[in-house]
Amino acid sequence: MNQITILAPGLIGGSLAKALKANGFTGEIVGWGRRESSLNKALELGVIDRYSLDLSQAISGAEVIVIATPTLIAAEMLKQLAPLVNEEVIITDVASVKGNLLSVAKQAFGTVPANLVLAHPIAGSEKSGVAAAKADLFVNHRVIVTPTEQTNPQALQTVKSLWQSVGAELVDMPVDEHDKVLAATSHLPHVLAYTLVDALAGNPEQQNIFRFAAGGFRDFTRIASSDPTMWHEISLANRDALLTIIDEFSAQLANVREAIATGDSENILGCFNRAKTARDKFAQMLEQQQR
Amino acid sequence: MNQITILAPGLIGGSLAKALKANGFTGEIVGWGRRESSLNKALELGVIDRYSLDLSQAISGAEVIVIATPTLIAAEMLKQLAPLVNEEVIITDVASVKGNLLSVAKQAFGTVPANLVLAHPIAGSEKSGVAAAKADLFVNHRVIVTPTEQTNPQALQTVKSLWQSVGAELVDMPVDEHDKVLAATSHLPHVLAYTLVDALAGNPEQQNIFRFAAGGFRDFTRIASSDPTMWHEISLANRDALLTIIDEFSAQLANVREAIATGDSENILGCFNRAKTARDKFAQMLEQQQR
Repeated sequence: MNQITILAPGLIGGSLAKALKANGFTGEIVGWGRRESSLNKALELGVIDRYSLDLSQAISGAEVIVIATPTLIAAEMLKQLAPLVNEEVIITDVASVKGNLLSVAKQAFGTVPANLVLAHPIAGSEKSGVAAAKADLFVNHRVIVTPTEQTNPQALQTVKSLWQSVGAELVDMPVDEHDKVLAATSHLPHVLAYTLVDALAGNPEQQNIFRFAAGGFRDFTRIASSDPTMWHEISLANRDALLTIIDEFSAQLANVREAIATGDSENILGCFNRAKTARDKFAQMLEQQQR
Repeated sequence: MNQITILAPGLIGGSLAKALKANGFTGEIVGWGRRESSLNKALELGVIDRYSLDLSQAISGAEVIVIATPTLIAAEMLKQLAPLVNEEVIITDVASVKGNLLSVAKQAFGTVPANLVLAHPIAGSEKSGVAAAKADLFVNHRVIVTPTEQTNPQALQTVKSLWQSVGAELVDMPVDEHDKVLAATSHLPHVLAYTLVDALAGNPEQQNIFRFAAGGFRDFTRIASSDPTMWHEISLANRDALLTIIDEFSAQLANVREAIATGDSENILGCFNRAKTARDKFAQMLEQQQR
Protein backbone atom coordinates (compact mmCIF):
# COMPACT_ATOMS: atom_id res chain seq x y z
CA MET A 1 0.00 0.00 0.00
CA ASN A 2 1.34 3.41 -0.99
CA GLN A 3 -0.88 5.91 0.82
CA ILE A 4 -3.35 6.11 3.67
CA THR A 5 -5.13 9.38 4.38
CA ILE A 6 -6.40 9.98 7.89
CA LEU A 7 -9.14 12.55 8.37
CA ALA A 8 -8.51 14.34 11.67
CA PRO A 9 -5.56 12.45 13.18
CA GLY A 10 -6.22 12.92 16.92
CA LEU A 11 -5.93 10.32 19.70
CA ILE A 12 -7.38 7.40 17.71
CA GLY A 13 -6.35 8.31 14.16
CA GLY A 14 -2.93 9.48 15.36
CA SER A 15 -2.40 6.29 17.36
CA LEU A 16 -3.30 4.20 14.31
CA ALA A 17 -0.78 6.14 12.18
CA LYS A 18 1.95 5.77 14.80
CA ALA A 19 1.16 2.08 15.25
CA LEU A 20 1.23 1.39 11.50
CA LYS A 21 4.65 3.04 11.19
CA ALA A 22 5.95 1.20 14.25
CA ASN A 23 4.81 -2.08 12.70
CA GLY A 24 6.51 -1.75 9.34
CA PHE A 25 4.07 0.22 7.19
CA THR A 26 6.27 1.92 4.58
CA GLY A 27 3.67 3.88 2.61
CA GLU A 28 2.85 7.55 3.10
CA ILE A 29 0.42 8.69 5.78
CA VAL A 30 -1.36 11.90 4.84
CA GLY A 31 -3.41 13.99 7.25
CA TRP A 32 -6.43 16.20 6.71
CA GLY A 33 -8.13 18.37 9.28
CA ARG A 34 -9.72 21.74 9.92
CA ARG A 35 -7.10 23.18 12.20
CA GLU A 36 -3.64 23.60 10.73
CA SER A 37 -2.12 23.77 14.22
CA SER A 38 -3.18 20.19 14.98
CA LEU A 39 -1.91 18.94 11.64
CA ASN A 40 1.40 20.71 12.20
CA LYS A 41 1.67 19.06 15.58
CA ALA A 42 0.97 15.65 14.00
CA LEU A 43 3.68 16.38 11.43
CA GLU A 44 6.20 17.48 14.08
CA LEU A 45 5.51 14.34 16.10
CA GLY A 46 6.15 12.21 13.00
CA VAL A 47 2.61 10.83 13.16
CA ILE A 48 1.88 11.88 9.56
CA ASP A 49 4.22 12.45 6.61
CA ARG A 50 2.38 15.41 5.11
CA TYR A 51 -0.98 17.10 5.24
CA SER A 52 -3.42 19.24 3.34
CA LEU A 53 -6.29 21.42 4.54
CA ASP A 54 -8.00 20.66 1.23
CA LEU A 55 -9.94 17.42 1.38
CA SER A 56 -9.63 16.46 -2.30
CA GLN A 57 -5.88 17.11 -2.23
CA ALA A 58 -5.46 15.13 0.99
CA ILE A 59 -7.25 12.05 -0.36
CA SER A 60 -5.68 12.22 -3.80
CA GLY A 61 -3.69 9.01 -4.29
CA ALA A 62 -4.99 7.33 -1.11
CA GLU A 63 -5.88 3.65 -1.29
CA VAL A 64 -7.49 3.84 2.15
CA ILE A 65 -9.23 6.79 3.79
CA VAL A 66 -9.68 6.56 7.57
CA ILE A 67 -12.37 8.87 8.98
CA ALA A 68 -11.14 9.53 12.52
CA THR A 69 -13.31 12.54 13.36
CA PRO A 70 -15.91 12.62 16.16
CA THR A 71 -19.16 10.74 15.51
CA LEU A 72 -21.42 13.39 13.96
CA ILE A 73 -18.61 14.89 11.87
CA ALA A 74 -17.88 11.40 10.52
CA ALA A 75 -21.37 11.46 8.95
CA GLU A 76 -20.58 14.87 7.49
CA MET A 77 -17.30 13.55 6.06
CA LEU A 78 -19.10 10.74 4.23
CA LYS A 79 -21.24 13.38 2.49
CA GLN A 80 -18.19 15.41 1.54
CA LEU A 81 -16.30 12.34 0.30
CA ALA A 82 -19.14 11.03 -1.88
CA PRO A 83 -18.51 13.29 -4.89
CA LEU A 84 -14.71 13.11 -4.51
CA VAL A 85 -13.81 9.41 -4.39
CA ASN A 86 -13.91 6.69 -7.02
CA GLU A 87 -15.29 3.32 -6.06
CA GLU A 88 -11.91 1.64 -5.72
CA VAL A 89 -10.92 3.68 -2.71
CA ILE A 90 -11.52 1.93 0.62
CA ILE A 91 -13.22 4.12 3.20
CA THR A 92 -13.21 3.14 6.86
CA ASP A 93 -13.77 4.88 10.19
CA VAL A 94 -13.33 4.56 13.97
CA ALA A 95 -16.63 5.96 15.27
CA SER A 96 -18.57 4.57 18.25
CA VAL A 97 -21.88 4.27 16.37
CA LYS A 98 -22.37 2.56 13.00
CA GLY A 99 -26.07 2.62 12.06
CA ASN A 100 -26.21 6.37 11.49
CA LEU A 101 -23.13 6.24 9.23
CA LEU A 102 -24.65 3.45 7.16
CA SER A 103 -27.82 5.54 6.64
CA VAL A 104 -25.84 8.63 5.70
CA ALA A 105 -23.68 6.58 3.29
CA LYS A 106 -26.79 5.25 1.56
CA GLN A 107 -28.09 8.78 1.05
CA ALA A 108 -24.77 10.33 0.07
CA PHE A 109 -23.61 7.60 -2.33
CA GLY A 110 -27.05 6.44 -3.50
CA THR A 111 -26.17 2.97 -2.22
CA VAL A 112 -23.78 1.71 0.46
CA PRO A 113 -20.38 1.59 -1.30
CA ALA A 114 -18.89 -1.92 -1.48
CA ASN A 115 -15.54 -0.53 -0.30
CA LEU A 116 -16.97 1.18 2.79
CA VAL A 117 -15.86 -0.87 5.81
CA LEU A 118 -17.13 0.54 9.11
CA ALA A 119 -14.94 -0.30 12.11
CA HIS A 120 -14.83 0.53 15.82
CA PRO A 121 -11.70 0.10 17.91
CA ILE A 122 -12.73 -0.48 21.56
CA ALA A 123 -9.90 1.58 22.96
CA GLY A 124 -9.68 5.05 24.26
CA SER A 125 -8.51 7.28 27.01
CA GLU A 126 -9.79 10.23 29.00
CA LYS A 127 -7.16 12.15 27.02
CA SER A 128 -7.69 13.39 23.51
CA GLY A 129 -5.67 15.01 20.72
CA VAL A 130 -2.73 13.84 18.67
CA ALA A 131 -0.24 14.59 21.47
CA ALA A 132 -1.80 11.69 23.44
CA ALA A 133 -1.45 9.25 20.51
CA LYS A 134 0.33 5.99 21.37
CA ALA A 135 1.65 3.29 19.04
CA ASP A 136 0.47 0.52 21.40
CA LEU A 137 -3.06 1.85 22.03
CA PHE A 138 -4.72 -1.05 20.17
CA VAL A 139 -2.55 -3.96 21.32
CA ASN A 140 -4.87 -6.70 22.66
CA HIS A 141 -7.87 -4.43 22.20
CA ARG A 142 -10.87 -5.48 20.18
CA VAL A 143 -11.81 -3.82 16.91
CA ILE A 144 -15.35 -4.53 15.77
CA VAL A 145 -15.93 -4.48 12.00
CA THR A 146 -19.49 -4.34 10.73
CA PRO A 147 -19.59 -5.57 7.13
CA THR A 148 -22.91 -5.73 5.26
CA GLU A 149 -23.93 -8.09 2.45
CA GLN A 150 -22.71 -5.49 -0.02
CA THR A 151 -19.23 -5.22 1.47
CA ASN A 152 -16.38 -6.15 -0.84
CA PRO A 153 -14.52 -9.06 0.87
CA GLN A 154 -11.16 -7.71 -0.28
CA ALA A 155 -11.83 -4.27 1.18
CA LEU A 156 -12.91 -5.94 4.42
CA GLN A 157 -9.70 -7.99 4.50
CA THR A 158 -7.55 -4.91 3.86
CA VAL A 159 -9.10 -3.02 6.77
CA LYS A 160 -8.82 -6.08 9.06
CA SER A 161 -5.17 -6.51 8.11
CA LEU A 162 -4.40 -2.90 9.01
CA TRP A 163 -5.84 -3.39 12.50
CA GLN A 164 -4.28 -6.83 12.94
CA SER A 165 -0.88 -5.37 12.06
CA VAL A 166 -1.14 -3.02 15.06
CA GLY A 167 -1.99 -5.80 17.51
CA ALA A 168 -5.79 -5.60 17.63
CA GLU A 169 -8.17 -8.55 17.86
CA LEU A 170 -10.82 -8.39 15.11
CA VAL A 171 -14.49 -9.25 15.63
CA ASP A 172 -17.23 -9.22 12.97
CA MET A 173 -20.66 -8.01 14.02
CA PRO A 174 -23.83 -6.83 12.25
CA VAL A 175 -24.32 -3.05 12.44
CA ASP A 176 -27.50 -3.32 14.52
CA GLU A 177 -25.92 -5.65 17.03
CA HIS A 178 -22.87 -3.41 17.36
CA ASP A 179 -25.03 -0.41 18.14
CA LYS A 180 -27.10 -2.37 20.69
CA VAL A 181 -24.07 -3.85 22.46
CA LEU A 182 -22.30 -0.50 22.65
CA ALA A 183 -25.48 1.24 23.83
CA ALA A 184 -25.64 -1.25 26.71
CA THR A 185 -22.00 -1.48 27.77
CA SER A 186 -20.81 2.04 27.03
CA HIS A 187 -23.40 4.64 26.05
CA LEU A 188 -25.94 3.82 28.81
CA PRO A 189 -23.29 3.79 31.59
CA HIS A 190 -22.12 7.23 30.46
CA VAL A 191 -25.69 8.57 30.47
CA LEU A 192 -26.27 7.12 33.96
CA ALA A 193 -23.04 8.54 35.36
CA TYR A 194 -23.66 12.02 33.91
CA THR A 195 -27.29 11.95 35.11
CA LEU A 196 -26.38 10.89 38.64
CA VAL A 197 -23.64 13.49 39.13
CA ASP A 198 -25.83 16.22 37.65
CA ALA A 199 -28.77 15.23 39.89
CA LEU A 200 -26.59 15.28 43.02
CA ALA A 201 -24.69 18.44 42.12
CA GLY A 202 -27.95 20.26 41.41
CA ASN A 203 -29.46 19.60 44.82
CA PRO A 204 -29.22 22.95 46.69
CA GLU A 205 -29.82 21.26 50.07
CA GLN A 206 -26.77 19.14 49.62
CA GLN A 207 -24.04 21.53 48.56
CA ASN A 208 -21.40 19.52 50.34
CA ILE A 209 -22.68 16.12 49.37
CA PHE A 210 -19.50 15.11 47.55
CA ARG A 211 -17.45 15.69 50.72
CA PHE A 212 -18.84 12.43 52.02
CA ALA A 213 -18.40 10.36 48.90
CA ALA A 214 -15.70 7.71 48.95
CA GLY A 215 -13.76 5.48 46.58
CA GLY A 216 -16.79 3.58 45.31
CA PHE A 217 -18.39 6.82 44.16
CA ARG A 218 -15.14 7.96 42.54
CA ASP A 219 -14.95 4.82 40.39
CA PHE A 220 -18.67 4.81 39.62
CA THR A 221 -18.61 8.40 38.37
CA ARG A 222 -15.20 8.40 36.64
CA ILE A 223 -16.82 8.30 33.17
CA ALA A 224 -18.78 11.47 34.01
CA SER A 225 -15.44 13.25 33.55
CA SER A 226 -15.43 12.25 29.85
CA ASP A 227 -15.77 14.80 27.04
CA PRO A 228 -19.42 16.04 27.14
CA THR A 229 -19.47 17.11 23.47
CA MET A 230 -18.30 13.73 22.26
CA TRP A 231 -20.85 11.86 24.42
CA HIS A 232 -23.62 14.21 23.40
CA GLU A 233 -22.85 13.32 19.76
CA ILE A 234 -22.76 9.59 20.50
CA SER A 235 -26.09 9.79 22.36
CA LEU A 236 -27.75 11.39 19.36
CA ALA A 237 -26.04 9.19 16.77
CA ASN A 238 -27.13 6.01 18.57
CA ARG A 239 -30.50 7.38 19.67
CA ASP A 240 -32.76 4.40 18.96
CA ALA A 241 -30.58 1.71 20.58
CA LEU A 242 -29.82 4.01 23.49
CA LEU A 243 -33.49 4.82 24.16
CA THR A 244 -34.34 1.11 24.09
CA ILE A 245 -31.70 0.21 26.67
CA ILE A 246 -32.53 3.26 28.84
CA ASP A 247 -36.12 1.97 28.91
CA GLU A 248 -35.03 -1.56 29.78
CA PHE A 249 -32.83 -0.24 32.56
CA SER A 250 -35.58 2.07 33.88
CA ALA A 251 -38.04 -0.84 34.02
CA GLN A 252 -35.51 -2.94 35.93
CA LEU A 253 -34.81 -0.06 38.31
CA ALA A 254 -38.55 0.30 38.92
CA ASN A 255 -38.63 -3.40 39.87
CA VAL A 256 -35.78 -3.03 42.33
CA ARG A 257 -37.40 0.12 43.75
CA GLU A 258 -40.64 -1.80 44.27
CA ALA A 259 -38.77 -4.66 45.96
CA ILE A 260 -37.08 -2.19 48.35
CA ALA A 261 -40.39 -0.39 49.01
CA THR A 262 -42.19 -3.62 49.90
CA GLY A 263 -39.26 -5.20 51.75
CA ASP A 264 -39.12 -8.02 49.19
CA SER A 265 -35.74 -9.42 50.27
CA GLU A 266 -35.86 -12.32 47.82
CA ASN A 267 -36.06 -10.02 44.80
CA ILE A 268 -33.49 -7.55 46.09
CA LEU A 269 -31.03 -10.32 46.91
CA GLY A 270 -31.79 -12.05 43.61
CA CYS A 271 -30.81 -8.95 41.65
CA PHE A 272 -27.72 -8.13 43.75
CA ASN A 273 -26.47 -11.74 43.73
CA ARG A 274 -26.91 -12.22 39.98
CA ALA A 275 -25.15 -8.91 39.38
CA LYS A 276 -22.21 -9.78 41.63
CA THR A 277 -21.77 -13.14 39.91
CA ALA A 278 -21.82 -11.55 36.45
CA ARG A 279 -19.53 -8.68 37.49
CA ASP A 280 -16.97 -11.00 39.11
CA LYS A 281 -16.94 -13.14 35.96
CA PHE A 282 -16.46 -10.03 33.82
CA ALA A 283 -13.58 -8.80 36.00
CA GLN A 284 -11.90 -12.20 35.71
CA MET A 285 -12.32 -12.20 31.92
CA LEU A 286 -10.84 -8.70 31.68
CA GLU A 287 -7.84 -9.72 33.79
CA GLN A 288 -7.09 -12.76 31.64
CA GLN A 289 -7.42 -10.61 28.54
CA GLN A 290 -4.90 -8.10 29.85
CA ARG A 291 -2.29 -10.69 30.78
CA MET B 1 -10.28 3.77 79.86
CA ASN B 2 -9.97 0.20 81.03
CA GLN B 3 -12.12 -1.81 78.65
CA ILE B 4 -13.76 -1.58 75.26
CA THR B 5 -15.94 -4.41 73.99
CA ILE B 6 -16.34 -4.82 70.26
CA LEU B 7 -19.34 -6.78 69.02
CA ALA B 8 -18.26 -8.74 65.93
CA PRO B 9 -14.69 -7.55 65.30
CA GLY B 10 -14.43 -7.97 61.49
CA LEU B 11 -12.91 -5.56 58.99
CA ILE B 12 -14.17 -2.35 60.61
CA GLY B 13 -14.32 -3.38 64.30
CA GLY B 14 -11.02 -5.24 63.99
CA SER B 15 -9.33 -2.30 62.28
CA LEU B 16 -10.55 0.00 65.06
CA ALA B 17 -9.12 -2.37 67.71
CA LYS B 18 -5.79 -2.63 65.89
CA ALA B 19 -5.64 1.13 65.37
CA LEU B 20 -6.41 1.87 69.03
CA LYS B 21 -3.61 -0.44 70.18
CA ALA B 22 -1.20 1.02 67.62
CA ASN B 23 -2.00 4.50 68.89
CA GLY B 24 -1.35 3.91 72.58
CA PHE B 25 -4.61 2.55 73.96
CA THR B 26 -3.57 0.48 76.99
CA GLY B 27 -6.95 -0.87 78.17
CA GLU B 28 -8.35 -4.27 77.38
CA ILE B 29 -10.20 -4.95 74.12
CA VAL B 30 -12.79 -7.68 74.45
CA GLY B 31 -14.55 -9.36 71.55
CA TRP B 32 -17.99 -10.87 71.20
CA GLY B 33 -19.40 -12.69 68.20
CA ARG B 34 -21.41 -15.65 67.06
CA ARG B 35 -18.64 -17.68 65.48
CA GLU B 36 -15.86 -18.76 67.80
CA SER B 37 -13.54 -19.36 64.82
CA SER B 38 -13.62 -15.64 63.92
CA LEU B 39 -13.01 -14.61 67.53
CA ASN B 40 -10.11 -17.06 67.79
CA LYS B 41 -8.63 -15.58 64.63
CA ALA B 42 -8.98 -12.07 66.11
CA LEU B 43 -7.25 -13.30 69.25
CA GLU B 44 -4.41 -14.95 67.32
CA LEU B 45 -3.90 -11.79 65.28
CA GLY B 46 -3.64 -9.77 68.51
CA VAL B 47 -6.65 -7.68 67.48
CA ILE B 48 -8.50 -8.45 70.74
CA ASP B 49 -7.18 -9.44 74.16
CA ARG B 50 -9.91 -11.93 75.05
CA TYR B 51 -13.43 -12.86 73.99
CA SER B 52 -16.68 -14.40 75.15
CA LEU B 53 -19.52 -15.95 73.17
CA ASP B 54 -21.82 -14.77 75.96
CA LEU B 55 -22.93 -11.18 75.39
CA SER B 56 -23.39 -10.22 79.06
CA GLN B 57 -19.98 -11.64 79.95
CA ALA B 58 -18.33 -9.88 77.00
CA ILE B 59 -19.73 -6.45 77.92
CA SER B 60 -19.18 -6.84 81.68
CA GLY B 61 -16.75 -4.14 82.76
CA ALA B 62 -16.80 -2.31 79.41
CA GLU B 63 -16.91 1.48 79.45
CA VAL B 64 -17.57 1.57 75.70
CA ILE B 65 -19.42 -1.01 73.58
CA VAL B 66 -18.81 -0.78 69.82
CA ILE B 67 -21.46 -2.51 67.70
CA ALA B 68 -19.51 -3.52 64.58
CA THR B 69 -22.00 -6.01 63.13
CA PRO B 70 -23.74 -5.62 59.74
CA THR B 71 -26.59 -3.09 59.58
CA LEU B 72 -29.67 -5.15 60.41
CA ILE B 73 -27.88 -7.16 63.11
CA ALA B 74 -26.80 -3.87 64.71
CA ALA B 75 -30.50 -3.14 65.32
CA GLU B 76 -30.86 -6.62 66.84
CA MET B 77 -27.84 -5.97 69.09
CA LEU B 78 -29.43 -2.80 70.48
CA LYS B 79 -32.47 -4.88 71.52
CA GLN B 80 -30.26 -7.49 73.17
CA LEU B 81 -28.15 -4.86 74.95
CA ALA B 82 -31.13 -2.91 76.35
CA PRO B 83 -31.78 -5.19 79.35
CA LEU B 84 -28.07 -5.82 79.98
CA VAL B 85 -26.42 -2.38 80.22
CA ASN B 86 -26.62 0.36 82.81
CA GLU B 87 -26.98 3.93 81.63
CA GLU B 88 -23.35 4.84 82.24
CA VAL B 89 -22.05 2.57 79.51
CA ILE B 90 -21.38 4.29 76.20
CA ILE B 91 -22.79 2.45 73.19
CA THR B 92 -21.61 3.32 69.70
CA ASP B 93 -21.62 1.65 66.27
CA VAL B 94 -20.16 1.77 62.76
CA ALA B 95 -23.25 1.08 60.61
CA SER B 96 -24.01 2.74 57.27
CA VAL B 97 -27.55 3.80 58.23
CA LYS B 98 -28.53 5.67 61.41
CA GLY B 99 -32.28 6.40 61.36
CA ASN B 100 -33.35 2.78 61.76
CA LEU B 101 -30.99 2.31 64.75
CA LEU B 102 -32.38 5.42 66.42
CA SER B 103 -35.94 4.05 66.06
CA VAL B 104 -34.97 0.65 67.39
CA ALA B 105 -33.12 2.24 70.33
CA LYS B 106 -36.23 4.26 71.23
CA GLN B 107 -38.33 1.09 71.28
CA ALA B 108 -35.78 -1.08 73.04
CA PHE B 109 -34.73 1.41 75.73
CA GLY B 110 -38.06 3.30 76.02
CA THR B 111 -36.15 6.47 75.12
CA VAL B 112 -32.94 7.12 73.19
CA PRO B 113 -30.19 6.56 75.77
CA ALA B 114 -28.07 9.67 76.45
CA ASN B 115 -24.92 7.58 76.14
CA LEU B 116 -25.82 6.13 72.73
CA VAL B 117 -23.54 7.81 70.15
CA LEU B 118 -24.17 6.63 66.59
CA ALA B 119 -21.15 6.93 64.29
CA HIS B 120 -20.26 6.00 60.72
CA PRO B 121 -16.67 5.70 59.52
CA ILE B 122 -16.58 6.39 55.75
CA ALA B 123 -13.98 3.73 55.07
CA GLY B 124 -14.15 0.24 53.78
CA SER B 125 -12.80 -2.23 51.33
CA GLU B 126 -14.11 -4.91 48.98
CA LYS B 127 -12.54 -7.28 51.52
CA SER B 128 -14.22 -8.28 54.75
CA GLY B 129 -13.38 -10.22 57.91
CA VAL B 130 -10.88 -9.62 60.69
CA ALA B 131 -7.96 -10.95 58.61
CA ALA B 132 -8.33 -7.85 56.39
CA ALA B 133 -8.25 -5.45 59.40
CA LYS B 134 -5.65 -2.67 59.12
CA ALA B 135 -4.45 -0.25 61.80
CA ASP B 136 -4.39 2.64 59.31
CA LEU B 137 -7.82 2.08 57.75
CA PHE B 138 -9.25 5.30 59.18
CA VAL B 139 -6.31 7.67 58.75
CA ASN B 140 -7.57 10.79 56.94
CA HIS B 141 -11.00 9.22 56.51
CA ARG B 142 -14.13 10.92 57.72
CA VAL B 143 -16.21 9.59 60.59
CA ILE B 144 -19.70 11.06 60.78
CA VAL B 145 -21.22 11.22 64.26
CA THR B 146 -24.96 11.86 64.56
CA PRO B 147 -25.72 13.16 68.07
CA THR B 148 -29.31 14.08 69.01
CA GLU B 149 -30.51 16.69 71.52
CA GLN B 150 -30.55 13.93 74.14
CA THR B 151 -26.94 12.89 73.57
CA ASN B 152 -24.64 13.26 76.59
CA PRO B 153 -21.84 15.68 75.52
CA GLN B 154 -19.24 13.68 77.47
CA ALA B 155 -20.22 10.42 75.78
CA LEU B 156 -20.05 12.20 72.43
CA GLN B 157 -16.59 13.52 73.24
CA THR B 158 -15.36 10.09 74.32
CA VAL B 159 -16.46 8.49 71.05
CA LYS B 160 -14.97 11.35 69.02
CA SER B 161 -11.67 11.03 70.90
CA LEU B 162 -11.47 7.31 70.10
CA TRP B 163 -11.81 8.02 66.37
CA GLN B 164 -9.51 11.04 66.47
CA SER B 165 -6.84 8.93 68.16
CA VAL B 166 -6.79 6.60 65.12
CA GLY B 167 -6.39 9.45 62.63
CA ALA B 168 -9.98 10.03 61.51
CA GLU B 169 -11.54 13.40 60.75
CA LEU B 170 -14.79 13.90 62.72
CA VAL B 171 -17.93 15.48 61.28
CA ASP B 172 -21.22 16.10 63.14
CA MET B 173 -24.43 15.61 61.19
CA PRO B 174 -28.13 15.17 62.03
CA VAL B 175 -29.34 11.57 61.61
CA ASP B 176 -31.74 12.47 58.77
CA GLU B 177 -29.08 14.34 56.84
CA HIS B 178 -26.61 11.49 57.25
CA ASP B 179 -29.07 8.99 55.83
CA LYS B 180 -29.94 11.28 52.89
CA VAL B 181 -26.32 12.03 52.02
CA LEU B 182 -25.30 8.38 52.18
CA ALA B 183 -28.36 7.32 50.18
CA ALA B 184 -27.24 9.70 47.44
CA THR B 185 -23.49 9.13 47.36
CA SER B 186 -23.29 5.46 48.28
CA HIS B 187 -26.54 3.49 48.47
CA LEU B 188 -28.04 4.74 45.17
CA PRO B 189 -24.81 4.14 43.18
CA HIS B 190 -24.73 0.57 44.47
CA VAL B 191 -28.38 0.00 43.49
CA LEU B 192 -27.71 1.45 40.02
CA ALA B 193 -24.60 -0.67 39.47
CA TYR B 194 -26.30 -3.89 40.61
CA THR B 195 -29.39 -3.10 38.51
CA LEU B 196 -27.39 -2.34 35.36
CA VAL B 197 -25.22 -5.47 35.54
CA ASP B 198 -28.25 -7.64 36.32
CA ALA B 199 -30.23 -6.12 33.43
CA LEU B 200 -27.38 -6.71 30.96
CA ALA B 201 -26.47 -10.18 32.24
CA GLY B 202 -30.11 -11.25 32.05
CA ASN B 203 -30.51 -10.41 28.37
CA PRO B 204 -30.50 -13.76 26.54
CA GLU B 205 -29.82 -12.09 23.16
CA GLN B 206 -26.62 -10.63 24.45
CA GLN B 207 -24.82 -13.52 26.11
CA ASN B 208 -21.43 -12.16 25.16
CA ILE B 209 -22.20 -8.54 25.83
CA PHE B 210 -19.48 -8.16 28.45
CA ARG B 211 -16.84 -9.26 25.91
CA PHE B 212 -17.12 -5.82 24.38
CA ALA B 213 -17.07 -3.80 27.55
CA ALA B 214 -13.98 -1.76 28.29
CA GLY B 215 -12.28 0.06 31.15
CA GLY B 216 -15.07 2.59 31.66
CA PHE B 217 -17.57 -0.20 32.25
CA ARG B 218 -15.16 -1.96 34.62
CA ASP B 219 -14.88 1.12 36.84
CA PHE B 220 -18.58 1.95 36.61
CA THR B 221 -19.62 -1.53 37.74
CA ARG B 222 -16.85 -2.23 40.29
CA ILE B 223 -19.26 -1.69 43.22
CA ALA B 224 -21.56 -4.39 41.79
CA SER B 225 -18.91 -6.82 43.07
CA SER B 226 -19.66 -5.74 46.67
CA ASP B 227 -21.25 -8.09 49.21
CA PRO B 228 -24.92 -8.52 48.12
CA THR B 229 -26.15 -9.46 51.62
CA MET B 230 -24.65 -6.36 53.19
CA TRP B 231 -26.09 -4.06 50.52
CA HIS B 232 -29.46 -5.73 50.70
CA GLU B 233 -29.50 -4.93 54.43
CA ILE B 234 -28.42 -1.33 53.85
CA SER B 235 -31.13 -0.87 51.18
CA LEU B 236 -33.82 -2.00 53.60
CA ALA B 237 -32.40 -0.14 56.61
CA ASN B 238 -32.30 3.15 54.68
CA ARG B 239 -35.46 2.50 52.70
CA ASP B 240 -37.15 5.92 52.88
CA ALA B 241 -34.12 8.03 51.97
CA LEU B 242 -33.11 5.53 49.28
CA LEU B 243 -36.57 5.50 47.66
CA THR B 244 -36.60 9.31 47.60
CA ILE B 245 -33.26 9.56 45.83
CA ILE B 246 -34.12 6.70 43.43
CA ASP B 247 -37.21 8.70 42.46
CA GLU B 248 -35.20 11.91 42.01
CA PHE B 249 -32.68 10.07 39.87
CA SER B 250 -35.42 8.36 37.80
CA ALA B 251 -37.08 11.72 37.12
CA GLN B 252 -33.75 13.18 35.99
CA LEU B 253 -33.07 10.13 33.78
CA ALA B 254 -36.53 10.56 32.23
CA ASN B 255 -35.57 14.18 31.38
CA VAL B 256 -32.33 13.14 29.75
CA ARG B 257 -34.14 10.36 27.88
CA GLU B 258 -36.64 12.91 26.57
CA ALA B 259 -33.84 15.25 25.50
CA ILE B 260 -32.16 12.42 23.57
CA ALA B 261 -35.48 11.34 22.03
CA THR B 262 -36.25 14.86 20.79
CA GLY B 263 -32.68 15.73 19.81
CA ASP B 264 -32.60 18.52 22.40
CA SER B 265 -28.86 19.16 22.27
CA GLU B 266 -29.01 22.07 24.67
CA ASN B 267 -30.47 19.98 27.47
CA ILE B 268 -28.23 16.95 26.85
CA LEU B 269 -25.11 19.13 26.75
CA GLY B 270 -26.32 21.07 29.81
CA CYS B 271 -26.57 17.89 31.86
CA PHE B 272 -23.30 16.38 30.62
CA ASN B 273 -21.35 19.63 31.05
CA ARG B 274 -22.64 20.31 34.58
CA ALA B 275 -21.86 16.72 35.52
CA LYS B 276 -18.32 16.89 34.14
CA THR B 277 -17.62 20.14 36.01
CA ALA B 278 -18.93 18.69 39.30
CA ARG B 279 -17.10 15.36 38.82
CA ASP B 280 -13.78 17.04 37.98
CA LYS B 281 -14.13 19.22 41.09
CA PHE B 282 -14.89 16.15 43.21
CA ALA B 283 -11.86 14.29 41.82
CA GLN B 284 -9.65 17.28 42.63
CA MET B 285 -11.03 17.46 46.18
CA LEU B 286 -10.43 13.74 46.69
CA GLU B 287 -6.84 14.05 45.46
CA GLN B 288 -6.08 16.94 47.82
CA GLN B 289 -7.64 14.98 50.69
CA GLN B 290 -5.45 11.97 50.01
CA ARG B 291 -2.20 13.93 49.88
